[in-house]
Amino acid sequence: MSRPTDVVAVDLGGTTIKAARFDAQGVAEETLRLATPSSEGPEAVVAAVVRAAADLVSPSTAAVGLCAPGLIDAAAGVVRFAANLGLRETPLAAAVADRVRLPVTLEHDVRAACLAEQRLGLGGDVRDLLVVVLGTGVAAGIVCNGQLVGGAQGFAGEFGHIPVHAGGEPCTCGQHGCVEAYASGGALVRRYRRTGGIANNAADVAARRDTDPEAARLWAEGADALGRALVTTTVLLDPQRIVLAGGMAAAGDALAEPVRHTLQNGLAWRSAPAVDISPLGADAGLLGAALRAAEAAGARVFLRSTC
Amino acid sequence: MSRPTDVVAVDLGGTTIKAARFDAQGVAEETLRLATPSSEGPEAVVAAVVRAAADLVSPSTAAVGLCAPGLIDAAAGVVRFAANLGLRETPLAAAVADRVRLPVTLEHDVRAACLAEQRLGLGGDVRDLLVVVLGTGVAAGIVCNGQLVGGAQGFAGEFGHIPVHAGGEPCTCGQHGCVEAYASGGALVRRYRRTGGIANNAADVAARRDTDPEAARLWAEGADALGRALVTTTVLLDPQRIVLAGGMAAAGDALAEPVRHTLQNGLAWRSAPAVDISPLGADAGLLGAALRAAEAAGARVFLRSTC
Repeated sequence: MSRPTDVVAVDLGGTTIKAARFDAQGVAEETLRLATPSSEGPEAVVAAVVRAAADLVSPSTAAVGLCAPGLIDAAAGVVRFAANLGLRETPLAAAVADRVRLPVTLEHDVRAACLAEQRLGLGGDVRDLLVVVLGTGVAAGIVCNGQLVGGAQGFAGEFGHIPVHAGGEPCTCGQHGCVEAYASGGALVRRYRRTGGIANNAADVAARRDTDPEAARLWAEGADALGRALVTTTVLLDPQRIVLAGGMAAAGDALAEPVRHTLQNGLAWRSAPAVDISPLGADAGLLGAALRAAEAAGARVFLRSTC
Repeated sequence: MSRPTDVVAVDLGGTTIKAARFDAQGVAEETLRLATPSSEGPEAVVAAVVRAAADLVSPSTAAVGLCAPGLIDAAAGVVRFAANLGLRETPLAAAVADRVRLPVTLEHDVRAACLAEQRLGLGGDVRDLLVVVLGTGVAAGIVCNGQLVGGAQGFAGEFGHIPVHAGGEPCTCGQHGCVEAYASGGALVRRYRRTGGIANNAADVAARRDTDPEAARLWAEGADALGRALVTTTVLLDPQRIVLAGGMAAAGDALAEPVRHTLQNGLAWRSAPAVDISPLGADAGLLGAALRAAEAAGARVFLRSTC
């Protein structure tokens, strides 16, 4: 039997399942992407995750790390509830372990991304860190005193539902004026289409900022809402560093600059923490899941910094 | 030499210095109150704290615990900055230790109150707790994963400066619409006087709720602002329990009921954490300082639960 030297990670997303086998240096040896079969029911989703993991496991794989959105019970390896995936009380880690016969971990996707940022990205040695993942929705990974914050029920980090405008835009959560109703990719596209604009995704809106005043206005309102929610988070938690991650972060300084401006304006009495774009890109969740798997493999596999 | 069996605590406040010697059961054997001589300069303030501690130390005192507002470096025992007290880079713990020749601890007053709530009040065994101290200003003690959250620069817990109304009431911090500009005792009195009402303190405004519609309106706006800031804190941190403490909490259900209402209304998609009035009253900070002193005294003194 060969010595375990790699881990497999699977990031179960609302639209895509991403998986990779990482060697001990954190380099992806093999990757796999497939559409999440959400419309075929929860059994199909679980089967797709099991297949993705099994396809990548090699004779030298030490452990498998999974991550998923929703309400995650990491200790039990169970997805308690994930609306977009139709999962409820789903023992996802056990389903994969039954097939691959290896230790299998499960982590919340945003907390996995935060873990990756802390260990492999910009968060190195930072004991108080905020990682905001801006995608279809908006959520945050919070590190206080060097530890990921899960909250009493595992609901911590619902940054997207910080109210920033009393009685403002309706949000998918049922409230009004949440930061997610302005700053998420989904909101940006919805609001742009409402002005008569044509966009498939947030990148389309971002690309039209210089030529379409409506695109410029909506982008600015999104960045402003994000900055306001960061003011709130900063007064509460005093993070040393704020990292912007997820698909929207691909906009780089076009996002970070106006966010920094709103944040510093809202903190008259203190300096603002640094705001940076994640260097890990959309793979942060996958890397975090791999880190959890490496932990489960004990001292046999380490993932090294990729930055 | 007698065996150490008690601790002395001193709570340095903006208007009052409170001190007490607590026996091992947490019962105050002797107490002392004096006006804080803020107008006489920082040396006078430090001298008053030293005198209060020295007056209460007995031959069986094991350690002294101090707490103070502002930016506190607990590890160094230094008040880095406390605007209301005129202190800057003040080695308060060392000043007291030089006189009493005992171990001396220093903690942030709101974090001390939070610690007392966790150990002696309603927070027992709660790993994710929020204690909001409502006095002249508003601040919060935050416990995540069982640990007090200090933040990168010791600025965490500035709950009073969560913005709840964009472009709202001016706040002493230089911003507009902070929760403190509506829900603090200071704001309530200021706003009530502006309507032509006469009030010396927040209790006067609270007492007129049933007879003066303006008092009722301002009280409701304060509770609503507090509830809104708690929505934000809950989505970020998912506390198991929220405790309202400080002078304003003496209003009991007249405060807690409307706050619970706003909080649950703002959390359409999840249940709200429990909101309760602190049983420790205005002495929570003092008790927390005593707990820190008991820790410093090692296994020789324990403070037991008082609830």
